[in-house]
Amino acid sequence: MISQDEIRRNVLEAVGKVKETAPLTPSITNIVTMEYVADAQLAAGGLAVMVHLPDEGEAMVRAGSSFYFNVGTFSTVLAGTVPRAVQSLIGLSKPWVLDPVGIGIGGLRTDLLMMMRELSPSIIRGNASEIIYLASLWGLETGAAAGKVNGVETTETPDDAKAAAVSLARHIRGTVAVSGEVDLVTDGKVIVRAEGGSPLFTKVSGSGCSLGGVIAVYAAVADPFTASMAAVMAYNVAGSKAAKQAKGPASFKTAFLDELYCLTAEEIAAAPFNLEAAE
Amino acid sequence: MISQDEIRRNVLEAVGKVKETAPLTPSITNIVTMEYVADAQLAAGGLAVMVHLPDEGEAMVRAGSSFYFNVGTFSTVLAGTVPRAVQSLIGLSKPWVLDPVGIGIGGLRTDLLMMMRELSPSIIRGNASEIIYLASLWGLETGAAAGKVNGVETTETPDDAKAAAVSLARHIRGTVAVSGEVDLVTDGKVIVRAEGGSPLFTKVSGSGCSLGGVIAVYAAVADPFTASMAAVMAYNVAGSKAAKQAKGPASFKTAFLDELYCLTAEEIAAAPFNLEAAE
Amino acid sequence: MISQDEIRRNVLEAVGKVKETAPLTPSITNIVTMEYVADAQLAAGGLAVMVHLPDEGEAMVRAGSSFYFNVGTFSTVLAGTVPRAVQSLIGLSKPWVLDPVGIGIGGLRTDLLMMMRELSPSIIRGNASEIIYLASLWGLETGAAAGKVNGVETTETPDDAKAAAVSLARHIRGTVAVSGEVDLVTDGKVIVRAEGGSPLFTKVSGSGCSLGGVIAVYAAVADPFTASMAAVMAYNVAGSKAAKQAKGPASFKTAFLDELYCLTAEEIAAAPFNLEAAE
Repeated sequence: MISQDEIRRNVLEAVGKVKETAPLTPSITNIVTMEYVADAQLAAGGLAVMVHLPDEGEAMVRAGSSFYFNVGTFSTVLAGTVPRAVQSLIGLSKPWVLDPVGIGIGGLRTDLLMMMRELSPSIIRGNASEIIYLASLWGLETGAAAGKVNGVETTETPDDAKAAAVSLARHIRGTVAVSGEVDLVTDGKVIVRAEGGSPLFTKVSGSGCSLGGVIAVYAAVADPFTASMAAVMAYNVAGSKAAKQAKGPASFKTAFLDELYCLTAEEIAAAPFNLEAAE
Repeated sequence: MISQDEIRRNVLEAVGKVKETAPLTPSITNIVTMEYVADAQLAAGGLAVMVHLPDEGEAMVRAGSSFYFNVGTFSTVLAGTVPRAVQSLIGLSKPWVLDPVGIGIGGLRTDLLMMMRELSPSIIRGNASEIIYLASLWGLETGAAAGKVNGVETTETPDDAKAAAVSLARHIRGTVAVSGEVDLVTDGKVIVRAEGGSPLFTKVSGSGCSLGGVIAVYAAVADPFTASMAAVMAYNVAGSKAAKQAKGPASFKTAFLDELYCLTAEEIAAAPFNLEAAE
Repeated sequence: MISQDEIRRNVLEAVGKVKETAPLTPSITNIVTMEYVADAQLAAGGLAVMVHLPDEGEAMVRAGSSFYFNVGTFSTVLAGTVPRAVQSLIGLSKPWVLDPVGIGIGGLRTDLLMMMRELSPSIIRGNASEIIYLASLWGLETGAAAGKVNGVETTETPDDAKAAAVSLARHIRGTVAVSGEVDLVTDGKVIVRAEGGSPLFTKVSGSGCSLGGVIAVYAAVADPFTASMAAVMAYNVAGSKAAKQAKGPASFKTAFLDELYCLTAEEIAAAPFNLEAAE
C-alpha cells in the first residue's frame, strides 16, 4: 500500500511541475461556472481554454495535456462534441476528468453519462449524491439506496458514498474524488479522507467545478490519484486560509483564489489527511 | 389594505423560512449574469441550478419550489424550453418570476414575451423602461409614451412606470417590482416605494438579474408580493452597507454579496419603505 | 506624424466623452469572459449588452455606437450572426473591434476570420501570437515564422508581432493593438509602445477580452487609434495601481475594475508611452 510520505512526495512533485510548465488544460464545461474554473486553473499554474464545437474539442485534445469535462448546462452541440473529444483522448492516452454535475436531469445528459461507462474517465469528481447516482446508473455497487438524488442538492456525506466511490474507481481503473466537509479520495486500493477548506465553498457557485478543473491541471503532469490529492489538498489549505479573512462568500472566493495562487508546493504537500486500505 | 407591520411580519417569516429550508430555485437565464444570479441566490439562502434543454427545464420545475426566467441572451433552444417549463409550472401551481431583459430586441424574444401575456407570471421584475415596454406590448395601460425603449438602456424612473406596473400586476394577478433609485413594488392594490441600495448597482452587470433570481428564492416560501418585498428590502439594506465599504463597482459587488449573506431576517424586515393604495 | 501631445489631447477628449455620454457598446462575445467584458465596459463608462441571435445582432448594431466581436467559444449560431452584424456596421459606417481569440482552432472560426479579411474591422486586438497568426492567415507580411501558434498560448512578445501588426493595420486602414508586457499599438503610420499594467493580468481569465470590449467603448466616440490608446493607457494605469493593492489574481481583478472606474481622463491621458514612425 502507498504510504502517506509517498503521496506527499508525489504531490510535491506534481505541484512543482505545474508551476514550472503551465500545462494547457482545455475544458468542455458548464457555462455558469466557466470563469471560475478558468481562474482557478490559472491560479494553480495551468492554462485554460473552453470550447463547444466538435472539431474544436478534438483540436484542443491534441493541443492540451489533459481535459476537463463538466456536464452541467448540457446542450445539444455537446452531445456531439464530448464523445468525439473523449475518443481522441483515449486514442492519445491523455488523462481526463469527468464531473457529473446535474446527473439525473435530462435525457441527453443521462445518455452521455451512460456512454461514459465504457469510456472510463481517468478521474471522476463529484459530491456524494452525484457519485452514488453515477455508480447506480452504471449498475455498480453503491452501498446506498439510490434514486433519491436529483444531481443538484446533496444530502449525503462523502462517507455515504464510500462504497460507490470504490466501485467506480475500480471500474475505471482510475481515481474518484468525493467533495464534502471531509473529502474522500480513492483509487480503489486506498481511501484518503482529508479535512480543511470551509463551508463557505458551498455558498459560492462553481467551487466543485473549479476543483474538477484544477484536478485536470495536475493530471497533466501526474497520475490520477496524485492529481486528485494535489487539488484536494490545495483546496483545503487555500480554503482554510481564505475562511480566516472572509466576511462572506464573495470575499471568501476572492481570498481563496489569491491563496491558491500563492500556495507553495510544500504547503500543499503538508496538508493533513488520513489513509486506509480499501476493503 | 395591508399594513406596513403586516408586510414586515410576512417578510420576516419569508426570510427566516428560506434560511431554514434552502429551497431549490432553478433558472433559465441570461448567460452574461448566470454566475451572479447563482451566487446571489446562494447568499440569500437558496439553492441555484441553471438549465437550457427542454426536458431539463421541465425536470427542474418538478424538482424546484419556484422558477426564475430571464430572457437576456435569448437562444433558439430556449424558445422551446421556456414555454414547456412555464406550462409545467402552471400545471403544478408553482410560482415563477419573469425578467424581461432585452425586451424589444429580436423576433424570438418578442414572440415569447407576447406569449407570456396569457401565461401570467407570478412576478415580473424589470427596470422602468422594460416594465413600460412590456405593458405596451401586452396592450395594457402604460400612462407613458412607449416605443422609445430598447430594453437595455433605461431612461425612465420607476415612478414613470407606475401606471404600467399597476396594470401589469392586475393583469397577471401577481406582483410587479420596478428597480431604480427608488424601487416601486405593486400587487395592483398597494404601491410600495423603497429607497436604499446604491448607484453602484448600475455599474455591475447583472444586479437586476440577480435581484430577480432572489425574488424567485423568496417566492418559494411566500406569496408574490412578500417575496418581492423581501428581495427588494434585502438588496436595499445590503447595497447601502456595501456602498460604505466599496472603492468602486467590483469591491461593491463583493461587499454586497457578503452583506446579503450576513443579513438577518430582522435587519431585512426593518428596511424603510412607503406604502400607499393604488388608484 | 502625430505627436505625443496630440495623442494625449485626443485620449483626454475620448475618455471625457465616454464618461459624459455612456455610449451603448454591444458585443457578440466569448461566454467564458462575458461578465468581465460587461463589467469593464461599465467601469469605463459605457453601457454593455451581449447577444447571440442573428436578428438581435443586427438590432444592436442599429442601437449601439460601436461593436465588439470576440470569437472565443465560437458557436454555430454566431457563424450566422457575426457576418450579418458586420454587414450592418459597414452599411452604417459604425466602428467595430475584432478580437481573434482562439484563432487556429476549428473550421467555423477559421472560415469567419478568413471572411473578415475583406470586411476590414476598424480595430484588431490580440496577443502577439494571435496577431501573427491572423496576418499569416490573411496572406500579409508577418516578419515571423507562423503556423506554430494555437491561438491560446502566447509565446511571442508584442515586438515579435510588429511587422504583422503594421501590415494588418495598413490592410484594414485601421488600428491594431497587441497586448503584452509592453503593449504595441499601430495605425500603420506610427508605432506606440506602452508599459505598465501587471503580469497578474495574465492570471485572470478575460483580461485581454475586456480590454477589447473597452476599446470598443472608446471607439464609440473617437477614431480607432485614439480609442485603442485610451483603453491601453487606462489598463496600464489601473493595472499598475491595482497590482500595488493585490494579494493575488482575484483581489487584483477587483482592484483593477475599481481603479478603472475611478480613473480620471487626466490620469489616463498622462500614462507613459513611446512613439515612433512605422517603417
